Amino acid sequence: MNNPHSWLNKVNWDEHGLVPVITQDASSGRVLMFAFMNREALTRTVESGEAVYWSRSRRKIWHKGEQSGHVQMIREIRLDCDEDALLLRVDQIEGIACHTGRESCFFQRLDGLADGAPHWETVDAPVKDPKEIYR
Amino acid sequence: MNNPHSWLNKVNWDEHGLVPVITQDASSGRVLMFAFMNREALTRTVESGEAVYWSRSRRKIWHKGEQSGHVQMIREIRLDCDEDALLLRVDQIEGIACHTGRESCFFQRLDGLADGAPHWETVDAPVKDPKEIYR
Repeated sequence: MNNPHSWLNKVNWDEHGLVPVITQDASSGRVLMFAFMNREALTRTVESGEAVYWSRSRRKIWHKGEQSGHVQMIREIRLDCDEDALLLRVDQIEGIACHTGRESCFFQRLDGLADGAPHWETVDAPVKDPKEIYR
Repeated sequence: MNNPHSWLNKVNWDEHGLVPVITQDASSGRVLMFAFMNREALTRTVESGEAVYWSRSRRKIWHKGEQSGHVQMIREIRLDCDEDALLLRVDQIEGIACHTGRESCFFQRLDGLADGAPHWETVDAPVKDPKEIYR
């Protein structure tokens, strides 16, 4: 008999029972965010078809978009060669993944390399004011 | 006076002095791999214009492509909103990032969800036989 959890056991969970997760917009290809899942979060993601993470800061299951409405619909889940990182390809509802109202959390770019003065520059504008998102 | 390391200090290094790094092909948009950097790796990445990681398994600096020739030329480095994850957008030499000879390390997809029998399926073929890469 196949163990129904063998797909979950194939993931190399870390010493905290977590796996790092990269989330990418399936249409634009934009890397949206980086987060973690535990076994329950991955199971709920698969069952619901929407991204569910483990919030390390709040120490609880986090259904992405539960407050903002910016849910992520799962198109594909991939595992890497070491089986210790996941990639989600999603449809990002409203095209906003970041709590700052931006499409992607990766909105700071390392600039100034040519003049020897590296600094992080905010290069993406918010799509929506966060005050309109979290009321 | 500006601290010349302030851009490095802006990164929220974890308790091991590491930051997770997502590497994406700048042309295809494919997420290629997931790894870590310490301060030295990030400094050397910026100075050389090629991706340099910290190998957690070998516990040493790892210039990606040093053996395989599959170097990653940096186009852009981004930091996320929590300042605890980096995104590299690169030109991947030979279009192969994975040690298995594949473009991306994320070549296993979770299939069988519709029939209630989830399993990881290898869905990408190698571009090149690893035996030809590591002689």
